[in-house]
Amino acid sequence: MSIPSPSAAPLRLGVIGTGAIGRDHIRRCTHALLGCTVVAVSDINPEQAADVVATQGLDAQIHSDGWALIEAADVQAVLVTSLGPSHEDYVLAAIASGKPVFCEKPLAVSADGCRRIVEAEIAHGKRLVQVGFMRPYDPGYQALKAVIDSGRIGAPLMLHCAHRNPSVPAHYTTDMAITDTLIHELDVLRWLLADDYKSVQVVFPRQSSNAQPYLRDPQVVLIETLNGTRIDVEVFVNCQYGYDIQCEVVGESGTARLPEPPQVQLRSTAQVSSVILTDWKERFMAAYDVELQAFIDGVRAGTLTGPSAWDGYAAAVAADACIVAQRSGGVVPVGLPERPCFYSR
Amino acid sequence: MSIPSPSAAPLRLGVIGTGAIGRDHIRRCTHALLGCTVVAVSDINPEQAADVVATQGLDAQIHSDGWALIEAADVQAVLVTSLGPSHEDYVLAAIASGKPVFCEKPLAVSADGCRRIVEAEIAHGKRLVQVGFMRPYDPGYQALKAVIDSGRIGAPLMLHCAHRNPSVPAHYTTDMAITDTLIHELDVLRWLLADDYKSVQVVFPRQSSNAQPYLRDPQVVLIETLNGTRIDVEVFVNCQYGYDIQCEVVGESGTARLPEPPQVQLRSTAQVSSVILTDWKERFMAAYDVELQAFIDGVRAGTLTGPSAWDGYAAAVAADACIVAQRSGGVVPVGLPERPCFYSR
Amino acid sequence: MSIPSPSAAPLRLGVIGTGAIGRDHIRRCTHALLGCTVVAVSDINPEQAADVVATQGLDAQIHSDGWALIEAADVQAVLVTSLGPSHEDYVLAAIASGKPVFCEKPLAVSADGCRRIVEAEIAHGKRLVQVGFMRPYDPGYQALKAVIDSGRIGAPLMLHCAHRNPSVPAHYTTDMAITDTLIHELDVLRWLLADDYKSVQVVFPRQSSNAQPYLRDPQVVLIETLNGTRIDVEVFVNCQYGYDIQCEVVGESGTARLPEPPQVQLRSTAQVSSVILTDWKERFMAAYDVELQAFIDGVRAGTLTGPSAWDGYAAAVAADACIVAQRSGGVVPVGLPERPCFYSR
Amino acid sequence: MSIPSPSAAPLRLGVIGTGAIGRDHIRRCTHALLGCTVVAVSDINPEQAADVVATQGLDAQIHSDGWALIEAADVQAVLVTSLGPSHEDYVLAAIASGKPVFCEKPLAVSADGCRRIVEAEIAHGKRLVQVGFMRPYDPGYQALKAVIDSGRIGAPLMLHCAHRNPSVPAHYTTDMAITDTLIHELDVLRWLLADDYKSVQVVFPRQSSNAQPYLRDPQVVLIETLNGTRIDVEVFVNCQYGYDIQCEVVGESGTARLPEPPQVQLRSTAQVSSVILTDWKERFMAAYDVELQAFIDGVRAGTLTGPSAWDGYAAAVAADACIVAQRSGGVVPVGLPERPCFYSR
Repeated sequence: MSIPSPSAAPLRLGVIGTGAIGRDHIRRCTHALLGCTVVAVSDINPEQAADVVATQGLDAQIHSDGWALIEAADVQAVLVTSLGPSHEDYVLAAIASGKPVFCEKPLAVSADGCRRIVEAEIAHGKRLVQVGFMRPYDPGYQALKAVIDSGRIGAPLMLHCAHRNPSVPAHYTTDMAITDTLIHELDVLRWLLADDYKSVQVVFPRQSSNAQPYLRDPQVVLIETLNGTRIDVEVFVNCQYGYDIQCEVVGESGTARLPEPPQVQLRSTAQVSSVILTDWKERFMAAYDVELQAFIDGVRAGTLTGPSAWDGYAAAVAADACIVAQRSGGVVPVGLPERPCFYSR
Repeated sequence: MSIPSPSAAPLRLGVIGTGAIGRDHIRRCTHALLGCTVVAVSDINPEQAADVVATQGLDAQIHSDGWALIEAADVQAVLVTSLGPSHEDYVLAAIASGKPVFCEKPLAVSADGCRRIVEAEIAHGKRLVQVGFMRPYDPGYQALKAVIDSGRIGAPLMLHCAHRNPSVPAHYTTDMAITDTLIHELDVLRWLLADDYKSVQVVFPRQSSNAQPYLRDPQVVLIETLNGTRIDVEVFVNCQYGYDIQCEVVGESGTARLPEPPQVQLRSTAQVSSVILTDWKERFMAAYDVELQAFIDGVRAGTLTGPSAWDGYAAAVAADACIVAQRSGGVVPVGLPERPCFYSR
Repeated sequence: MSIPSPSAAPLRLGVIGTGAIGRDHIRRCTHALLGCTVVAVSDINPEQAADVVATQGLDAQIHSDGWALIEAADVQAVLVTSLGPSHEDYVLAAIASGKPVFCEKPLAVSADGCRRIVEAEIAHGKRLVQVGFMRPYDPGYQALKAVIDSGRIGAPLMLHCAHRNPSVPAHYTTDMAITDTLIHELDVLRWLLADDYKSVQVVFPRQSSNAQPYLRDPQVVLIETLNGTRIDVEVFVNCQYGYDIQCEVVGESGTARLPEPPQVQLRSTAQVSSVILTDWKERFMAAYDVELQAFIDGVRAGTLTGPSAWDGYAAAVAADACIVAQRSGGVVPVGLPERPCFYSR
Repeated sequence: MSIPSPSAAPLRLGVIGTGAIGRDHIRRCTHALLGCTVVAVSDINPEQAADVVATQGLDAQIHSDGWALIEAADVQAVLVTSLGPSHEDYVLAAIASGKPVFCEKPLAVSADGCRRIVEAEIAHGKRLVQVGFMRPYDPGYQALKAVIDSGRIGAPLMLHCAHRNPSVPAHYTTDMAITDTLIHELDVLRWLLADDYKSVQVVFPRQSSNAQPYLRDPQVVLIETLNGTRIDVEVFVNCQYGYDIQCEVVGESGTARLPEPPQVQLRSTAQVSSVILTDWKERFMAAYDVELQAFIDGVRAGTLTGPSAWDGYAAAVAADACIVAQRSGGVVPVGLPERPCFYSR
């Protein structure tokens, strides 16, 4: 990728949605990333938008709604960080305006919605969409992929994964274990293996007594890929002890394990110990910076390379199959259509 | 358990079968264990039996067959280390003679055979049989069980296990992954969890190119226990890199992992590394001594406490279900009858 | 520290010295850091300066020498990355011009030179100097300091450290083990402990056969602090296997160890292993960005907080004592004067 | 070593001293080791001796004193586990009687005493004495030695060691850090390196507030070997957190670290942790069995190979030098005479 000249003008961003994630991305664009400036914001709650502008000292226009922001002449690219159900329409509008758009997950609340975005982008003729899947930008996953791609462990045959949260809010439901939690594995493992999913199955261990009565927690999701790799992902969102992401790849001649965050090793009170993070935001903090910098650099360089609308669609299709599998107890085919040439890997 | 007086006479053992395992147990009884002496041996190949007596300098009688050995007046207890198909009959004969018998796995080549032994032992009225499952005597598994039983990780919900061998001989077949390999997990996990199996399922990742064409390797065995704990065991017998036994228990509030054998940590040639064993015999070497000493001490103290005929039967029933599951691809109930009071935990 | 407004104009930097480190800092200021722009460069070799401007696409003036650059009206702050012997004069000139200056180590080639800078800065009345010690900006050392400061291991009593390089160039001499290698520990350990050095001693193990005949390698430097903490630092610059930085703090009730860089854990070829870096530049790569960003932010906020001229002086005084100790074999007092209030911790 | 025939009669042992260590060795000889039987005991407190015989169900004669025990016709070998000051005389008496003797450390309370034993043994013409240094029988140290001897890390240049106890009783004094604690390193490191000590130095960090006011704790002992290897041993007997033995060997091309005892890895309450032992008896428990079995096997085979009287003498000479170094603060030569051919390595 060509690096934009340092003297090139910064990319002028408009941000739709100024909730927690929106604010965090605005802070990021303003105080951490290079080559961008936030020139426009909007929110369904205009006071909140005004508050962000004031608090963060932005020189940005507050638009009455996302549609106006997308069409504003000085907005060169759009960040969609509004509530999930609004994503699809904003992304479609950005495509219609020919403006690059970074959309937080989910790209759309249904696989069909994702597909409409894919079709619109293909019709437009050039990649404009990056989905906010940050794990491919995590140095740990990148190192793991480098080991796989080096051939040092041979062809991958199995993956053993875990996604554990200390606890979840009361409104978290059994299907959110797929759509909000597993969705990250559904994205990153496709990328890690350069493969797609063939079928899924979900089995339920006995419920943790720490889970809400209506929440099936933990769950184990069993996935078969087109290449025949078998993946098991433990999803356990009331594990109490920490936010813990595990991924072990078993290849034909060796195994490789996702690095854990570096920590001081302590010896005290009859144990040797290291801290496990409890806050998911810390675990992939650096990756959020890198993914958004990649979007900005990509837009400025004229080529987006991050998670695409197709990736968002593929994850949504797999998630839908998992939801069906949760209910049926059986093996459910994923049924992702063939990847269009437009989205070559 | 009462410790036998040091001045008590040693237990007089007869050993049926002087192949590799028989010889190893004879060496163990003669040069490593306390309170026993090998006074009789037999083998279908009498020359081999004679050779062992000569090589190991035993003062032992060579019997023409196992039946004669079992009935010999000076044999107080029997070790059955002959070929698998002969186990059932020898064990039944020992029970008929009222003599304690340590039988290498399998207790019998069929679950029905194991059941006949169970019934004979119950009819006899007192435990006489210990099966050669050594993992419950491994200090690592014992430490893991102690953690579970302490409640420090809460009730177990999931187990993630792996049983990996570098390679297997050409005659190793797909069902031997169950009967020769997984059988150790089928035994030790029941003991670890103090639970029994409800159903099993087997899924096949794509075959390793290092496996014989007719061998489905690796396999993933999915087990549900009566308590609802979900277990996945990766069986991979051509993993190339080592003999590697993994067991992670995920409880309601924490996880616990089987210790790995202690090794020197090396820093050299741009890596930090530790040796992984490649020979299964080394991995549980100490446990073999402990299990047989437990048999000897148990016989002398009048109370056997190790893996029972029921445990051998339970493992056989579960293995049978796994074989069916290998072929059907579906979820197969295990169907172990209720545990007789005779075999209280 | 107040964060400068995003709309504030970037800090205009002049860079004296465009060798490897200078270029790297120019790249950093141009493509990685926020709030600065390189507007001037100079080098004793003007062609090299011109080459950097062209290669990196800078909009920067090439000055005939460092003195001109320092006095240039549009240069607001100076980076000194020229050869070591020139540092002192450039830094003094920057102070004389009242311009903030970031000076790569060494601050001066003698402790006396450092002291002259300290005196000039005190006379100026406000901190202008930051020395290029990056380890206090390393997240690992910061985490280690946080553990110490938390009291979780009690008061520090001993530190066991190692500074190992795979190899060094032929011109590397025995005293460079102090001035070029140990100097990083001499800086970071004062900061880690919030303490100063009382005395030093150097002992020489037998020489590694991989070292040049005239190079005493390895060395062990023994340090006592004013608080009575005892530090041992192994300096081994031909250790072959990697660039390895170790630091274990032993406190009254526990120990804490510097985290190692996160790496994929591999199981292959009968060993479990992780990569050890071999290139020092990779080990503290992130810290270089953070230290320079801290300088830029500090200048813009009006308050420098990083390693000060006094810190540079203190390290130089300790290094001088180590050189004497190398030659005498005895315990050598460090003799740092009392810290002026100007440089409160 | 030739293994004694299993039918050979067991070695008849007499044990002098039935305190904690004596009882433990009696239990060991009676219930854990092969090829021996305790036939005689004595103690300065005859009631205590009688109690041991009764409690452990021994068929052993109670002698009025150690001299009578040594001379008793049915005692073939002697274990000396009485109070330290009595060791020398009992060992000399055993040598005079031509009986093999296993003597707990110290072999004698002075180096001169050890030397008298060495001279008596040489005069006798055959090795009769084994000293109770158990670390060379620890599988961890054996594995570490195997790595060194394999050449995988090159010639050893430095050793970094730590010997930490959670706490010590009130009567423990500063010199006992050498004679009771460091003595184990003084023995095992000579064996590990196949080298001897040239000089020692002791430095004192500031005292831990957890130590008795009169106890200098921790201490750092610096040792130079004849080959020029430099050893630092931290001795810290009030470290609070555990009984922790560390040993890192730095060779010309790599490093090797003593394995830690295997433990379950736990993830709970925001940390990953493993237990550190707090009781020294557990740490080397297996090694005690192995060392005493080696003595028994050695006596029965006619060749003692364990730690010799010379090893006891060498450790005592080094310990004396350390005591001098504690007081002088300087570098103290060790001054071990040349090893007699009688004690070839």
